[in-house]
This record gives sequence, structure tokens and C-alpha cells, in this order.
Amino acid sequence: MKKTATLLINCPDRKGLVAAIADFLFRHDANILHADQHQDAEENLFLMRVEWDLSGFALDPTQFERQFASIAEKFQMRWQLKLAGHKPRIAIFVSRYDHCLVDLLYRHQSGELACDIPLIISNHPDTRRVADFYGIPFQVVAINKENKAEAEARQFSLLDSYNIDLIVLARYMQVLSPEFVARYPQRIINIHHSFLPAFVGARPYHRAFERGVKLIGATSHYVTEVLDEGPIIEQDIVRVSHRDQLEDLIQKGRDLEKVVLSRAVRWHVENRILLYANKTVIFD
Amino acid sequence: MKKTATLLINCPDRKGLVAAIADFLFRHDANILHADQHQDAEENLFLMRVEWDLSGFALDPTQFERQFASIAEKFQMRWQLKLAGHKPRIAIFVSRYDHCLVDLLYRHQSGELACDIPLIISNHPDTRRVADFYGIPFQVVAINKENKAEAEARQFSLLDSYNIDLIVLARYMQVLSPEFVARYPQRIINIHHSFLPAFVGARPYHRAFERGVKLIGATSHYVTEVLDEGPIIEQDIVRVSHRDQLEDLIQKGRDLEKVVLSRAVRWHVENRILLYANKTVIFD
Amino acid sequence: MKKTATLLINCPDRKGLVAAIADFLFRHDANILHADQHQDAEENLFLMRVEWDLSGFALDPTQFERQFASIAEKFQMRWQLKLAGHKPRIAIFVSRYDHCLVDLLYRHQSGELACDIPLIISNHPDTRRVADFYGIPFQVVAINKENKAEAEARQFSLLDSYNIDLIVLARYMQVLSPEFVARYPQRIINIHHSFLPAFVGARPYHRAFERGVKLIGATSHYVTEVLDEGPIIEQDIVRVSHRDQLEDLIQKGRDLEKVVLSRAVRWHVENRILLYANKTVIFD
Amino acid sequence: MKKTATLLINCPDRKGLVAAIADFLFRHDANILHADQHQDAEENLFLMRVEWDLSGFALDPTQFERQFASIAEKFQMRWQLKLAGHKPRIAIFVSRYDHCLVDLLYRHQSGELACDIPLIISNHPDTRRVADFYGIPFQVVAINKENKAEAEARQFSLLDSYNIDLIVLARYMQVLSPEFVARYPQRIINIHHSFLPAFVGARPYHRAFERGVKLIGATSHYVTEVLDEGPIIEQDIVRVSHRDQLEDLIQKGRDLEKVVLSRAVRWHVENRILLYANKTVIFD
Repeated sequence: MKKTATLLINCPDRKGLVAAIADFLFRHDANILHADQHQDAEENLFLMRVEWDLSGFALDPTQFERQFASIAEKFQMRWQLKLAGHKPRIAIFVSRYDHCLVDLLYRHQSGELACDIPLIISNHPDTRRVADFYGIPFQVVAINKENKAEAEARQFSLLDSYNIDLIVLARYMQVLSPEFVARYPQRIINIHHSFLPAFVGARPYHRAFERGVKLIGATSHYVTEVLDEGPIIEQDIVRVSHRDQLEDLIQKGRDLEKVVLSRAVRWHVENRILLYANKTVIFD
Repeated sequence: MKKTATLLINCPDRKGLVAAIADFLFRHDANILHADQHQDAEENLFLMRVEWDLSGFALDPTQFERQFASIAEKFQMRWQLKLAGHKPRIAIFVSRYDHCLVDLLYRHQSGELACDIPLIISNHPDTRRVADFYGIPFQVVAINKENKAEAEARQFSLLDSYNIDLIVLARYMQVLSPEFVARYPQRIINIHHSFLPAFVGARPYHRAFERGVKLIGATSHYVTEVLDEGPIIEQDIVRVSHRDQLEDLIQKGRDLEKVVLSRAVRWHVENRILLYANKTVIFD
Repeated sequence: MKKTATLLINCPDRKGLVAAIADFLFRHDANILHADQHQDAEENLFLMRVEWDLSGFALDPTQFERQFASIAEKFQMRWQLKLAGHKPRIAIFVSRYDHCLVDLLYRHQSGELACDIPLIISNHPDTRRVADFYGIPFQVVAINKENKAEAEARQFSLLDSYNIDLIVLARYMQVLSPEFVARYPQRIINIHHSFLPAFVGARPYHRAFERGVKLIGATSHYVTEVLDEGPIIEQDIVRVSHRDQLEDLIQKGRDLEKVVLSRAVRWHVENRILLYANKTVIFD
Repeated sequence: MKKTATLLINCPDRKGLVAAIADFLFRHDANILHADQHQDAEENLFLMRVEWDLSGFALDPTQFERQFASIAEKFQMRWQLKLAGHKPRIAIFVSRYDHCLVDLLYRHQSGELACDIPLIISNHPDTRRVADFYGIPFQVVAINKENKAEAEARQFSLLDSYNIDLIVLARYMQVLSPEFVARYPQRIINIHHSFLPAFVGARPYHRAFERGVKLIGATSHYVTEVLDEGPIIEQDIVRVSHRDQLEDLIQKGRDLEKVVLSRAVRWHVENRILLYANKTVIFD
């Protein structure tokens, strides 16, 4: 696989943006592999993802920021650079349902996820055996109403000591405190087992069953201060019928949750997600 | 096509039900073509659809009720019989958006819908040309806040004079009064342009666009007194991305609405929908 | 979960079939939970699946055959009975790609598959660690052109000693001999990584990529003497685009293969598959 | 809607391509609305679509070729420019099945298709009424084995006199001669009622039914000299079951064919399709 760099850009739309960026890259001998650019007319925003081959690239990546600064300033860009060399470090939070955890670990092992997974945190010991199988440190942090602040402090300390870039809530059944969420802006991905905004909150499959919907869904999203209201990354659905009892919904839903969460994680680690206006652009 | 009869049954579950029904049909020389039976364990309900060939059937259909009464009573059945001979008579209500109307009329002409469509009612004259093309009487009933009761009275009179069995709201942009709904229980089908229960109410595509969902949906349902809360008949979705502006959602949605509404109408006229507990069983 | 019995029936269509079966079950106090019956008009076949609660059933299951024989004979039925008590015993064959194996074992552990998996056979040692994790005996049977007959003899002996009912080829990259296939009629399920009948044979993803298809598929089917021509059990597809290179097709395909194979296995062990005319009826 | 220009480019991959194109556009005051660029590593090809706002664009479009020539030459580009002002002119060919024709005409009227449809050619008079409803000239050209060359000559003359840019075969049941195909390279779009390459040739639904597939498909493609082997533009599928008889496949297939053909036509007229190596890139 080629070593590449990826640049995500979000700024007010102006003439000459593509030219300025392409020219900058060309002057440093970049060979552009993929470029995708989009304009949000309503918000007057320019949104771009560009990926280039690092072999032959004449600019030392550590110098990138300094060199790119004048362009970035001129166009008031918010930008992010991701270098092939740096793999984001992910912590997975899990409770008792282990299907998303098992799925993510298997995909990681298969090379589908370009990240490191150095830490699993759970409020239950049940999934330790899986963590052991994949050789990943597993920490139990019990949590309840009384000890929540304390438990989160313990989690922060673990996240810090493992240098974690992204937290993935893989059916973690605890609501994070506002402090927790504020500490990791756009760096917590959750899987909700409904087609949001339908069935916000608890027990979505039960409510879907009662409502008699003909499709059930799953939604992966970034976590923000308002529960289940963060920017949606991916959604998918599966058909159900009267032949499906509640347990069948739950079983079918598991397959959805796995796929929908793993896509979100993959796109995040490949720097394919651009956030704006509580929405995501997925440069796939 | 074979001439068939269809029986829909809904009753408390008890041993011997299938045997009693099958035996009754066999004694009258019915050749069963399809039988589908389902038990809702939670509600302890027995739900069945059975369709048989009328050629060779020894019971005069007009005598069916009298003969079947003792079984029906014994098992406390709610049942419906549909004979091949009787085509339900449908009135389509439409406003300005004509895609569902055009789709239903074309399908009807193609033989996909086993019904008659003797009446189209609109609050605007715009779709008259389409009605004329298909040779269907078209009545404009203008409606506004002031004249609503009066306008609905005019609609009732039209529905009566055309002997209408089922009303299809094909993007009809008026809310029916409780009196209207009560007059046609389980006989009004609506298409809502969202994946219910997400985006109940007005302007669902606008809200879907703002929320940044990755899939948009459409839902056909029976109309009950509470807006968009009636039993769901069918739903489907289509994928959208950041490349889709609001107008693209509306355009993609049209294809969904057509398909989802036409399936509901087809299943209704083929007696495939059994209603219970604000849900539907679709015997497809 | 209720203990149930399931009967699959395939016979020439005749009046009175449903009545005869329902009456037989009723006389022995069966409470029918699900019944689904279908007529293939072209082949004049009657196809039925009926499932009933064993609690309260007055007939000793071991006596079923003797009691049912007169009905079965009268209507020339081919039939199969499956009792809740008996879990089918499955052997999984695998080569190096382990995604289907891992998926099946996880689903089995989660209770999704009502079977036992007492044996894994592979022509490579690579997946032993997975087998060990789930505590399932793992046997390496190396196979090549020279030793094929011998290797298959070793496989037969293993299958016999473990009392295997069903063989699942979970991306097993060897073609079975006609003798092997003949030994397990309708008892070998394979996953083919294309939307059959497109791309029969080797390297379907490569050929799909070259042809420029917009969807890739996977197909689970019973193995018969003609390669990839057996009765199809399940198929599914996923969308691809020019952004997907060959490796992306392979990666996306893995998710398809897992789901499509596991559905086939589940339906088989739940006695939901009726075979006729090189086709399957899935009573879902 | 904005007036835009669209440029499609296909050339050997080289550094500086994006910069050269973006710089050219910037120098002429283009405001780029969308740009999508893709590299086919295996073929070492650079593929790009760029769309810009014509308001404020300083270059007279008629001068574009002359000005762009030096860049195009330098990079050995094959390129196509589409200006908002020019609507492609489409002729629809149809036989007796009219669902695709009706669908295309309705979409055109609704503003979904940015083209003109000045001509419908059929080998049967059946669809004249539809053509009349939409006010489109309708020409019957009867065709059979004996008069094929003559009939095609008559078609050529019609196509010439109506200045046709693109031919859409909307379930036209005649095979075009090699001369016909050669006359309109990459300018004939066909709808095939199967998931190609499965069921190439005649009666695909019949063969799908016999094979017992669980999904049926439709494929739109450019017509080349080899039947059903041209570059695939779009495909989609729908699920079928044992409950679907052959007629149900045909009915379900109609919905697929309409959608799959209309997408192909829309993408073509919006200059979103880039052809290479018997494949298409769809810049959606």
C-alpha cells in the first residue's frame, strides 16, 4: 500500500481555492491520488479532501504546517492533515453486548482498520476473554450513579496514559457526562440501535416493535452534549416483518450495528469525515 | 388468472383452528392455493390468510357467511371474505404533486392493481389532464380553513355516489377532520414522505436535510385520528449523501413514495393486510 | 423458547391436503404455531411447512412416522420431521480465509444457530487458534491433486466418527469429488462469492472488477455434482463504485459472504428450506 | 438553477494535472462548484470531472477549446465540455412495453432530465397515445428480418433530421445492426432486464425464475457491437421469493428497469459518465 497524506479542508467558498491548493501541492512535487471537493451553496462553504502519494513529496511533513500557513490564513481554512505514518490510537468502550467489540477487533486484525487499538474499557468483566484473545489491555471500570465522577476520572487517566485519539462506544450502556463529552470533541463515536432521529433514547428495538415499523435501523454518530443528537456518520436498515418477534429484531439489529459502527470507525481513521453544521461529509 | 376467494381471520389462539378452517373449506371442495398463518404469542392471537380457487368450490359465495358463522362464532373470529368477483372501488385524493397519482393510474392500467378507480378528488384543478388521459372522473373540491366542513360534506357526497370502498391520499396536502377519519375506519391509506416515526408532521425532507441523515424514507399507513400515527403498511428508504441538496432529496423521495404507496394499495386490494394492535400483518 | 416440532412436506397438489394434515395434528392435540403453505402451479406441487408446540402434543415423536404414514402415503408425500430435541451436527470446512468461520462460530456461541458444531476440518493449520478459542476439535487434512481420494477418505472417516449431519463450506477452496457430493445429498452448503449465475467458477471478484459491475454479490447454495449450479438458498449484494479497487471489492464481499452463508445455515438447521426442481423454498 | 459548465477529462496520470486545470480555470475567473478526481492505478489513468459556475466566467465558451488546447495537448487529454446552454437531444426507441417510455417522459416533464426529447421511434403503433399526451413526434418504423437495412436507413434519416445526440432503447425489442451501433459510439443506452453478466440474451426473467435466484436485477449500459457486453452504467436488484411467480418477477422487474434506465439517462445528460476500458466512472 502506498504511503499517503490526506488533507481535509473546510472554509468559506472563494474563487481560486482549488487552484491555490493544487498549485501548493504541485510545487512540492505531490502526486495527487484522490481529490474530492464539494460546495455547500446554502452555507457558502468549500469542503475538500485531497490525498497524495508521500513518495517523491518534497516537503518534510513536519514542515507542512509552516509552509501551508499562508494559504490557510488567506482562505480562513479549518484544516486537518493526516500522515500515513501516524495511526490513530483507539480505545473501545463496551458493556456486556460484545458483538460490536468482536467485530471491530476482527476487522482490525484483518487489516480493515488503519489504527491501533491499545485499550478496551468496560464496566463489566465479561469481555475480558475476547480482549485476551486479541492481546489487548482490558480495564474494568465499574460505574454507577454514586461513583460516576470518580469512575470517569479513572477513565480519563487511562485514556491519557494510553495516548488515545478516538473513543469508540461499542454498545457501551452508560451515558457519558457533559465533562467527558467536552473533553473529546468530535473524538467519540457511538452506535445507536435505531434509525435516528426515530427512537431516540432507551430501548429502541422495543419501541420499534411496538410501533410496527417495517424496517429497523442503526446509526453511528459523533457524541455531543445532547443525547443521540450528534452528527450522523452512517446509517443502514434491514427489513422486518410480522414473522419477526422482538428477539428477531434484536438479532437482525446486531448485524446492522456491527457494519454501521465499523464503517464509521474506518472512515474516521482514514480521515474521510468532515464535520460542519452538525452534519458530516463522507468523502468515500 | 384464476378466480379466487380470500379469507382473513383474526381471533384468540386455540388448538384446532387450522383444522376447523381447513376442514370447512375441504368439505365445500375448495382447493387451497395459499395459506399463511401466524401466531402473535404476546397478544395470544391467531392470524390467518387463506386463498382458494373458486372453480369447483361447492359453496355459493353469498351463502358463505351463513355457513361459516358457527365456526366463526365458536372461535370468536373477526373475519373478512374477499371474492374475486368484487373489485374494490378506490377514490384518489391529490393536491398539486402528481407523481403518486400518475404512478397509480399507470399501474392500474397495466393490470397491477385489482381495483376500480372511478373517482379522483383534488383541491386544485392541476391534475385534470392526467385524469382525462385515463378517462377517470375528476372533481375539484377547493378546501380552506373556513369551508372545511362544507368541503368535506361535498367529498362525502361524492364518495357515496361513487360507492367508494377505499380512499388513497396520494400526496393530498390537507389534514382530514376527525369526522372524516371516523367515517372510513381502516379505509384511508396515506403516504408520508419520511421514515416514520422520524419526522412526523410537516416538511419532513427539509428536516431530514437539516439533521443530516444518510437515508431518507417513505411510509404508507392507514389514517387514524392521530396524525402520522396509524398502522404502518410499508416503508422503504434510499441512500443520500452530501452531494444531495434538498431538491435531490425531494426528487429521490418521489421514487420512494410512488413505490411505497402503490405496494400498500396493491396489498389492500388483494386482501393481504390484517390489522391488529395498531400494526399490520402483510401476508405477501 | 418453546420446544417445537417442524414438518416439511412436498407432494402433488390435491384437494384436502391442508385439512388432512391439520386434522391429524389436531387429533393429537398439537397447537400449531406457524403454518405456511404454497402451491407451485406450474409443477402442480404442494409445499408446506408447519411448526407446532410439543408441550401438550399427545403423540410420542418416535411414533410420529408410523401414525403419519397413512396420510403420507395417500398423498404421496416426501416429508421431513425435525424435533426440537435433536440439534443437527455441523462440520465446518475452511481453508485460509477465516471470516466466515469466525462469523459462524460467534453466531453459534450467541445462540443464533440451533445446531452443534463438533468439528472443523481445514487443509491448512492457520485457523486452529480460532477453533481452540471456541473449544471445537480442529483437524487438518492436507489435500492436493495426488492425495485427493485418500484425503477425502480421511474426511469421511472424521465426518462419520463425529456423526455429522451437515457440512458447511466456509470458503473452503477445494472442489469436492463427485463421490463426496453424492455421499451428502442436500447436506453440503457452500458460499460462492458472486451473484450466481454471474461469475461461476474461480476468481469472481477479479472478473466482477474487470467487467465493471456496479453491484457485487454472494450466493449460498447446496452443493451438487455441477460446480456452482446447486439450488440457491440465499443471495445478497452490495453497491460498489469506481472508488473501489479490487481489494475493496474483496473486503466488502467478506461482509456479504458472512451474512449470506450464516442465513443459509440458520434456515437449514431450523428446517425452513424445502428443495424441489433444483430450487429452494425458504419458509421464513 | 445556476448555469454551469462541465469538463470530463481522461488522460495518463502525471504530476501537476490538477494544478494545471485548476489554474487554467482560476485564470479565467471560474468558480468551481464540484470537482471529483480519481486515479486508476492499474491503468495509470487520471479521470476527472469538474463543474463551474458560468456567471463571471471570463472565457467565451466558444473560445474554450482554443484556449484549453495547449494544456490538453501537453497532458494527452481526451476531454469533453458540456455547457449549460446546450441540452442534448434524445430519441427514445420503444416496442410494445411502455413502462420505461412513460417513466422517462414523466421525469422529463417534471424537470428531472436536462435534455430535449424531440423524437420517439417505435416498431409498433401502440404507444402513440402516450407520445401525443406529451406532445412528442412519434414515428413508426416497422422492422423485420427482410427489411432491416431499409428500416435502419429510415431511422438514420429521422435521427439526422431531428439532430439526435443520444438514443435510448427503452425496452426496444430489436437488435441493432453493427452499422447502427458503429454510427453512434457511446451514444446508445440500453436497459437489459437482468443483473448482467447473468442472463445475457433473451428472456432473462424466465431464466432467472428457472434458476431459482433470490434477487432479480436490471442493468443499463452503453450499446457496443457485442450484445449485452457494453460498459455498465447502473444496476439494481429487488428481492424475490417462492411466492413470486414468473409474472411477479416481470412486474417487480418493471420498477427496476424504470429506475435503472432513468438514472443512466440522467447521468449521461449531466455529463457524469466517463468511459474507459469498457467501464464507466459515474461522477455522482
